[in-house]
Amino acid sequence: MDTYAQMTKEGLQQELERLRKTYRTYQAKGLQLDMSRGKPSTEQLDIGMGLMNVLEPTDEMLTEDGMDTRNYGGVDGIPEAKRLMAEIMDVRPEQVMIYGNSSLNIMYDLVARAMLLGLLGKKPWRCEKDVAFLCPVPGYDRHFAITEHFGIRMINVPMTEEGPDMDRVEELVADPSVKGIWCVPKYSNPQGVVYSDRTIKRMAALRPAAEDFRIFWDNAYAVHHLYGPENGRMLNILEECEKAGNPDMVFMFASTSKVSFAGAGISAMAASAANLADAKKSMVIQTIGYDKINQLRHVRYFKDLAGVEAHMEKHAALLRPRFELVLSILERELAGRGAGSWIRPLGGYFITFESVEGCAARIVELAKDAGVVLTPAGAPFPYGKDPEDKVIRIAPSYPTMEELETATEIFALCARIATAEHELRQRG
Amino acid sequence: MDTYAQMTKEGLQQELERLRKTYRTYQAKGLQLDMSRGKPSTEQLDIGMGLMNVLEPTDEMLTEDGMDTRNYGGVDGIPEAKRLMAEIMDVRPEQVMIYGNSSLNIMYDLVARAMLLGLLGKKPWRCEKDVAFLCPVPGYDRHFAITEHFGIRMINVPMTEEGPDMDRVEELVADPSVKGIWCVPKYSNPQGVVYSDRTIKRMAALRPAAEDFRIFWDNAYAVHHLYGPENGRMLNILEECEKAGNPDMVFMFASTSKVSFAGAGISAMAASAANLADAKKSMVIQTIGYDKINQLRHVRYFKDLAGVEAHMEKHAALLRPRFELVLSILERELAGRGAGSWIRPLGGYFITFESVEGCAARIVELAKDAGVVLTPAGAPFPYGKDPEDKVIRIAPSYPTMEELETATEIFALCARIATAEHELRQRG
Repeated sequence: MDTYAQMTKEGLQQELERLRKTYRTYQAKGLQLDMSRGKPSTEQLDIGMGLMNVLEPTDEMLTEDGMDTRNYGGVDGIPEAKRLMAEIMDVRPEQVMIYGNSSLNIMYDLVARAMLLGLLGKKPWRCEKDVAFLCPVPGYDRHFAITEHFGIRMINVPMTEEGPDMDRVEELVADPSVKGIWCVPKYSNPQGVVYSDRTIKRMAALRPAAEDFRIFWDNAYAVHHLYGPENGRMLNILEECEKAGNPDMVFMFASTSKVSFAGAGISAMAASAANLADAKKSMVIQTIGYDKINQLRHVRYFKDLAGVEAHMEKHAALLRPRFELVLSILERELAGRGAGSWIRPLGGYFITFESVEGCAARIVELAKDAGVVLTPAGAPFPYGKDPEDKVIRIAPSYPTMEELETATEIFALCARIATAEHELRQRG
Repeated sequence: MDTYAQMTKEGLQQELERLRKTYRTYQAKGLQLDMSRGKPSTEQLDIGMGLMNVLEPTDEMLTEDGMDTRNYGGVDGIPEAKRLMAEIMDVRPEQVMIYGNSSLNIMYDLVARAMLLGLLGKKPWRCEKDVAFLCPVPGYDRHFAITEHFGIRMINVPMTEEGPDMDRVEELVADPSVKGIWCVPKYSNPQGVVYSDRTIKRMAALRPAAEDFRIFWDNAYAVHHLYGPENGRMLNILEECEKAGNPDMVFMFASTSKVSFAGAGISAMAASAANLADAKKSMVIQTIGYDKINQLRHVRYFKDLAGVEAHMEKHAALLRPRFELVLSILERELAGRGAGSWIRPLGGYFITFESVEGCAARIVELAKDAGVVLTPAGAPFPYGKDPEDKVIRIAPSYPTMEELETATEIFALCARIATAEHELRQRG
């Protein structure tokens, strides 16, 4: 089979005609399909319904150290929740503080605090002429939205199969205006990359010009394996930073948003003792405390990491067939055609598709006009701008298998049309 | 009966000797009593335990408009929670956004946002040479902690029986560096003052020099009546601001922290459409959404304002005897002695005691040495400094009736000792 790049002008024209005919039959169906949202399906949410009444009206609501979870106090979390989140994050309980329902909120507040008040006694970032963040791309749009919101300049760093391009990172942190880097180290959003040991060791050993440079280590998919925990084994960045003499350089984040419920979970930060004490100084001003009843609810339900992993296997059982369906259709419809490539992730929530350069926005547009909503091309990049216009993030979790099949077939068709159009334009 | 001020030196000396003898018998008991914490008692928390399983594993978790509360979406709250909080706040549902578990957190974030990004397109406060807030005193220490945390200068404004001294407020807002005022308008913390209609109308009609001046209207005790809702009737400040041509001048806050559970409730802000839209711009960056399951839990349990009021009557039944016990002991031990005065509140969580000038810190110290912890003197003032050293905040909610009786007797005794000591010093 010839790739589109190898086809003649006439061959491409005939191919396009065929493809467009099929496309029109899909259009005629008036479909409404959505592969844009990285959110759990209803079946996944049903798995966790036991949380609803794990606490009963007659229950003792005390923590293991005797605090009443229904009252004020315990601003940085109940001991058993610290232990649970520590297990999930692969750190020690004393390295953890529990927050509210959203780890993104912790990150936003942290950047806001760095801007306004400064970190560990350093000058507030608002007093700097220029503040910049490194953004491995493609990455998580909501990270980039935070830095953009505060007017922080964002610098793209390419992702490799082992994590961010560390040559580039090492070079860039020599600039004192570079204050941080966004990382999703396990099953990265959207590519599903697990940072290699080598990457993590180089990350931990960075010598940034800015003393208050921070790694924002968003371990959003800590336990979100598609094929078991073995694929997600990762070095502990906090430990590596300590070893490298950079104990304060990293903030780790995790939550149960995609373990229990999106929005009704608990979140945590792990960091050095100095960073935790610094964060707590603002925490005790910002709130009287987070929802300790929900912390207790989670601990009583999940008990420990083994409980969480057993639960996550149920999520995986629902997610795996969806991922495999999408990948098998891409394979069947696109392999060998030179109409894009894709990554087969071992965890997380997304499949990343890379089109021929300059085709991503066109594919998204074509899909939309045939009734399939995709994440906007460019979304996984700072300022929503993919410089090569080739990355598309596919979210297979939410649609039914039937919807997903049709949606992926349409997607593959659109990738072929856009590529053929592109090749024809090349021929003039 | 002579007051201490009227007594002779000898009379005072004899009195002090008698009082100190009683004091030593209390000291010998090695008591550990606490009247410092404005938190609900265990019995109060037990009232709300029906919330625990009001949602069952088999329940539909959908909102009235069909959104799944377990998933992402609905960042500013579910419709039924907006309606419930609107009823509590005496505003319309479309004037409300629902946040997380803490209204203090909304206020902190709001001040942080005003500092960093500015309000409604105005210059960020961090760009001003000087930013000041008006602080009606005595007031809520955690409000003052927020403004202090951000380096905002605080200006004391005396409280009257009708609310803040509005002559002084009107005079002070002529200074463009004055950007806000902290208010607890109903059953004010700590005095229990309900702002009068006249105060609210003058507040709403302010003509501040700063265009981005804001009233932080913390209606923390909206439904926290000791003797029924009639005593808490109050004009709607949002409506009054609209009428006065100041629609954007006020942010209203409320929560269910002392309705359902401290820390595990829901919170809300009410404001003009323009202010809500401005807040939402940051909200959608800061979080994917608050805990909608907890919102649903509260709505299913309380249903409406009538449900909340019936529930609050159960709280009142537990709080009323405690307040009355403290007041009756103060009356019995201190009335007519010129050893301080107190306010009889009709709602809220505190009794305010005013000592003879210069005696508050000494009373707190004496009480501590006899085993009774009180809120530090000065706590209800900016920077923890009571310029006249006379206000003490008594929190009757948490101790048992028996503990409260002993603690208040010791308190009254300490007030008498400190006053007698003070009068003796006056005689030289």
